[in-house]
Amino acid sequence: MSRPPGRKQENHKISRELFVLTYGALVAQLCKDYEKDEDVNTCLDRMGYGIGIRLIDDFLAHSAVKKCRSYSETADVIAQVAFKMYLGVTPSVSCSSATGNEFSLILDKNPLVDFVEELPAERASLCYCNLLCGVIRGALEMVHLAAEVTFLQDRLKGDAVTEIGMTFLRKAEDRKHKR
Amino acid sequence: MSRPPGRKQENHKISRELFVLTYGALVAQLCKDYEKDEDVNTCLDRMGYGIGIRLIDDFLAHSAVKKCRSYSETADVIAQVAFKMYLGVTPSVSCSSATGNEFSLILDKNPLVDFVEELPAERASLCYCNLLCGVIRGALEMVHLAAEVTFLQDRLKGDAVTEIGMTFLRKAEDRKHKR
Repeated sequence: MSRPPGRKQENHKISRELFVLTYGALVAQLCKDYEKDEDVNTCLDRMGYGIGIRLIDDFLAHSAVKKCRSYSETADVIAQVAFKMYLGVTPSVSCSSATGNEFSLILDKNPLVDFVEELPAERASLCYCNLLCGVIRGALEMVHLAAEVTFLQDRLKGDAVTEIGMTFLRKAEDRKHKR
Repeated sequence: MSRPPGRKQENHKISRELFVLTYGALVAQLCKDYEKDEDVNTCLDRMGYGIGIRLIDDFLAHSAVKKCRSYSETADVIAQVAFKMYLGVTPSVSCSSATGNEFSLILDKNPLVDFVEELPAERASLCYCNLLCGVIRGALEMVHLAAEVTFLQDRLKGDAVTEIGMTFLRKAEDRKHKR
């Protein structure tokens, strides 16, 4: 679709609530589709991955972020720029390994669960926000960073905070040699 | 969940792209689940209805809109306040009946299809954005307005614009007597 030349970029900000409720409808649908929580989690992660590999272009275009020079810088950009831009919150970042490739994004408040009271008893293993892990993983892959991204803590499961763990894997080159 | 007293309301604005891509994932999932376009459309409408009946509280709390005194005013509020707030766009409104209860919301640009090129040939009857109809219907019902909401035109199907038709039904009182 072509844009009228010279026209100012439209306002890309929207209210979060419609997104949060739509996400809830998506998770509910997957819970209908799949009996096992693990399958729902996998599906959310896979969907997120598909979103992340497309969202990265939008992110690079709108964030004006330059190439990161370290895993630490990358983690900070995800927390301070990407989360802020897409979810309106800024997680804190902690480095959780001596090797400097493991980081945690810690959310005091997770906007995606605004309308969720608690997980039903029969869905105790559901990673409700697992889409986010997939989005991060997909987006990172498009800038040539392989990472494992998983929920380590979740307020929905009674933890004090919500914590997303990111482990950056060896450089793509290394992994290629290994195959 | 309690909020710290006196703390300023958080920023509820987010970037639209994550929502648009997540919505795409939802529609794709429903297309996997249901063979018939009509079933996907119905499901999207039903999901939207569930969202609308919850979103209305958020809308009334954040929009400071007062009670509308006519269908025409209601249609204007949906277009100019609700669409602006939740999707970042403002449709134009036209009244399409002499009886004054039929309105169209006309979108030159539909942000929900930002990443959609065209519908696949085998999904020609899909109302991709049917969730919106359900949201409007659900939200209206919560302020005691019954309405039929459907897509009349859709750029995804080759129409020049996207047009959502709203037909306000008789007053709740009338319908009750009829039963």
